[in-house]
Amino acid sequence: MLAADLPLHVDEAVTIAGWVHRRRQLKSVSFLIVRDRTGQAQVVLTGPTALALERFPEETVVQVSGRAVANPQAPGGVEITDATITGLSGPATPPPFDLYRPTVAAGLPVILDHAGVALRHPLLRAPFEIAAAAVAGFRAHLDSAGFTEIHTPKIVGTATESGANVFGIDYFGRRAFLAQSPQFYKQTMVGVFERVYEVGPVFRAEPHDTARHLAEYTSLDVEFGFINDHHDVMDVLTDALAGMLAVVAERAGAAVARLGITLPVVPSRIPQIDFGDAQQLIAEHTATDPRGEPDLAPADERWLSECALREHGSAFLFVTGYPSVKRPFYTHPDPERPERTRSFDLLFNGMELVTGGQRLHRHTDYVAALSARGENPEAYSGYLEVFAHGMPPHGGFAIGLERFVARLVDADNIRAVTLFPRDLHRLTP
Amino acid sequence: MLAADLPLHVDEAVTIAGWVHRRRQLKSVSFLIVRDRTGQAQVVLTGPTALALERFPEETVVQVSGRAVANPQAPGGVEITDATITGLSGPATPPPFDLYRPTVAAGLPVILDHAGVALRHPLLRAPFEIAAAAVAGFRAHLDSAGFTEIHTPKIVGTATESGANVFGIDYFGRRAFLAQSPQFYKQTMVGVFERVYEVGPVFRAEPHDTARHLAEYTSLDVEFGFINDHHDVMDVLTDALAGMLAVVAERAGAAVARLGITLPVVPSRIPQIDFGDAQQLIAEHTATDPRGEPDLAPADERWLSECALREHGSAFLFVTGYPSVKRPFYTHPDPERPERTRSFDLLFNGMELVTGGQRLHRHTDYVAALSARGENPEAYSGYLEVFAHGMPPHGGFAIGLERFVARLVDADNIRAVTLFPRDLHRLTP
Repeated sequence: MLAADLPLHVDEAVTIAGWVHRRRQLKSVSFLIVRDRTGQAQVVLTGPTALALERFPEETVVQVSGRAVANPQAPGGVEITDATITGLSGPATPPPFDLYRPTVAAGLPVILDHAGVALRHPLLRAPFEIAAAAVAGFRAHLDSAGFTEIHTPKIVGTATESGANVFGIDYFGRRAFLAQSPQFYKQTMVGVFERVYEVGPVFRAEPHDTARHLAEYTSLDVEFGFINDHHDVMDVLTDALAGMLAVVAERAGAAVARLGITLPVVPSRIPQIDFGDAQQLIAEHTATDPRGEPDLAPADERWLSECALREHGSAFLFVTGYPSVKRPFYTHPDPERPERTRSFDLLFNGMELVTGGQRLHRHTDYVAALSARGENPEAYSGYLEVFAHGMPPHGGFAIGLERFVARLVDADNIRAVTLFPRDLHRLTP
Repeated sequence: MLAADLPLHVDEAVTIAGWVHRRRQLKSVSFLIVRDRTGQAQVVLTGPTALALERFPEETVVQVSGRAVANPQAPGGVEITDATITGLSGPATPPPFDLYRPTVAAGLPVILDHAGVALRHPLLRAPFEIAAAAVAGFRAHLDSAGFTEIHTPKIVGTATESGANVFGIDYFGRRAFLAQSPQFYKQTMVGVFERVYEVGPVFRAEPHDTARHLAEYTSLDVEFGFINDHHDVMDVLTDALAGMLAVVAERAGAAVARLGITLPVVPSRIPQIDFGDAQQLIAEHTATDPRGEPDLAPADERWLSECALREHGSAFLFVTGYPSVKRPFYTHPDPERPERTRSFDLLFNGMELVTGGQRLHRHTDYVAALSARGENPEAYSGYLEVFAHGMPPHGGFAIGLERFVARLVDADNIRAVTLFPRDLHRLTP
């Protein structure tokens, strides 16, 4: 039986199992709070049983059999009396910090070094319950829209998008790499399934030690064909985000409540602004003049995001039409302004969350785009093959799962919403 | 509009888009068969339009606008007349083999070398539609049973289970490895979420060049706490398999029909046999005597599987109680026969598909088990930490997704059901 089910069994014999969350010894009575995945249950101990508390320090795993009795003062309105306690683990060693305290009395390094124990704290566990629900919502929406889930290789023969920031592998004596993204594979699979998605790890040998970069993270990748332009991609992204937040509300409502956060609403049409107009606005209304720059600075993104929230009540903002020079070679140019692209970034609460757009789909365009960048199309022949065999206009996007959750729960550091983060310094646990 | 929707729009103006699957030029009339993700549509061309066929060789991506007309002879009972055809890609280069032929006129090496194009063949695409549905069914069952999905790192500081068959990575100038399984992490997370699963890539530097081994594959990992013994694990596995096959039938029925396969039924209780009894049976009824061997040979597994099918009508068979000597150190011994374990293999149509069992959960037992094998517990201190802080009796299993699909579709080679297989020789595409 689970802790959350106890109110359904008042005045019945019950058995629960979980971790000793807290022991409290009063003069005439003692309490044992038992924690399981659904919540906490109060066990009342009197007489000789109370002495047994010594044998079950916090975090010891126990099974408790007794009687469920209504008590308005107890958590959930029920407590267990006449209890028999059986230890299922050995007596637990004290955790690195007290898990029973309402707030977390440890800094991030301690939490990360002892993640397996620290994440038992209900507040630290919550972001991962939200992440699981978000991914379920992502898949549910795409499944309902005719997408096929794929699994593409993480060991690749050549660096995916650029030679930089890539981890090398010794592959049976040959040189191989960890995939920086499933970009080439997901595009290829549009030729097979039309609409595909993948949820999987991507790897960046990111030499920057920041609060928002990881060497390994979970990427939610989407790619699909028969689009008119990047606006069709933005529509699917909007619906996917709405699906993610709906399932977070539905399945992880307890975690959301525990953290005291408010889930943002995804507008049916997320506000959007052209890259050039955004720069113009920033030049007019702030102290900086970014015009002529090929990308937006983080401070500019924050300012734009605040505008969107103020003017449109939206935590989300699309910036469209980024300059070609800052986008990968496979990005589809804007036919009316060839120095610009049919691409977008999605800002969420001030931070870039998603990058996407329409891709080139004709073989000749790929050869021209690579040549224009001084790259040899021969080096991409495996990737380019499918474009000679008929590919539809297509596009897609990638959401960084940890970034999404970090913004949602307002985490200062992306590592706080990553089970076992990997970065420049951290390779264990 | 999709090809499969045409019958709903007879006598209406319609527009579809897809790949030119086949052109057929007769004397007075020509046909264009257009393929999309839902099926095929026949387009009738007469007069000058028929000449346009030259411009749209097979695999060219086209949009076709016309009128849907009932014709019992046409596929789906509908065809498109008065058609206007627009090319959405350039004229396609001929694929490495004819994709319009009902059977596949190419061997596995050609298919794998040109996967991006070859997998468009409806028969070659089918196993991946089945795989996507199987994974969806796996998750759906576990979600409904209170499991939390997790994402654990694939870059690890030490080899997961043994030093052999592990890929080395250059990690910011340090030595790191690709995870051979999420075993240690999923066990750890039982302490946080009680019940977890992960769908992700695992990596084995497998030096054997066989039809059933890959260097990278998709592992469906499950781990959960508060079990009595391995039979609780077998129950969850049984239900997960039933869930997988139910969703395959529901969502990938077309792919199943295309391949002409019959889905196996998962018995509510899968037949099981003790390892020792299995050896006894083999000794009595076949020419070999495996008694005293610590594991079953592939031929023995096939023979046992045939027995289960013959005697119980089950494509699945559990073999339980493997000797400790062939199981990892974290395997829980059988208290009544310490040289045996609370473990199982699941055979599916003659092949080992799943390995699982109960794990040790007390810190002292881990230290003893490692010491007994001559290993230094210190080397595992990161993993062992959580067991000192209270872990419940727990267990789990891992299903190899590609093996599952290979058995389901009766593939001769596991590479035929892997989008871009990685092995001793193959690193591209």
